[in-house]
Amino acid sequence: MMSNCIFCKIINGEIPSATVYEDEYFKAILDISPAAKGHVLILPKHHSDDLLELDSDSAARVLMVAQKIAKAQMEELKCDGINMLQNNGEAAGQTVKHFHIHLIPRFNGDKVDIKWSQGSYESGEAAQLAEKINKRIN
Amino acid sequence: MMSNCIFCKIINGEIPSATVYEDEYFKAILDISPAAKGHVLILPKHHSDDLLELDSDSAARVLMVAQKIAKAQMEELKCDGINMLQNNGEAAGQTVKHFHIHLIPRFNGDKVDIKWSQGSYESGEAAQLAEKINKRIN
Repeated sequence: MMSNCIFCKIINGEIPSATVYEDEYFKAILDISPAAKGHVLILPKHHSDDLLELDSDSAARVLMVAQKIAKAQMEELKCDGINMLQNNGEAAGQTVKHFHIHLIPRFNGDKVDIKWSQGSYESGEAAQLAEKINKRIN
Repeated sequence: MMSNCIFCKIINGEIPSATVYEDEYFKAILDISPAAKGHVLILPKHHSDDLLELDSDSAARVLMVAQKIAKAQMEELKCDGINMLQNNGEAAGQTVKHFHIHLIPRFNGDKVDIKWSQGSYESGEAAQLAEKINKRIN
């Protein structure tokens, strides 16, 4: 628990939330400012700032929870799709420094914008960069 | 293996790729049309269309792989952040029907757009919806 973390306060009940799911490791809540109604945040109970810090217990379990919730969202909300999104760093849009996964219900023609202009690589450049990244992986 | 799946073909080597990481369960490659150079796609070797179908072995392991790659991206690319994104359904921007996680390097002031207008709930509405979703989770 981090005393100044709003998500830790939600997890321990100091701040109320609309809870969609809870188990030993996670609490999943409705985002109070949703992209669409039924937009869920999955919060590991063990505090970590982001993906790089995420503890191995949470890492091994969180996608199973995401699956369960996504299925329930599809059924209940009758949405056309779902984005699973997790932001690391302010540059990536992370506003709360407690690892969390967004499950965003999507509807054909909705106003959620997730896009980028597609770049490209010179011949040989991608292979070279892939090798550089690979060398940094333990 | 799905014979008409482009990611299955990349995984089995029929289509070449710039490979960042590979183990028994996953192949991670550079996206050939990247949001930024070093944009990675993590592909489970076992074919599943999306998060709802993802097999439990892949689900339990993929975030550990994402962690390793994200750390290597931060070091090699000197990026300011990373988005982890996984799209389900055309409405959510899924273009290849083989589960994949995007790891998108982010830089302050870059042109990647991940945003939505923030909605809200009437009093009591969120609690009610959370309960409905919760009831659908096994």
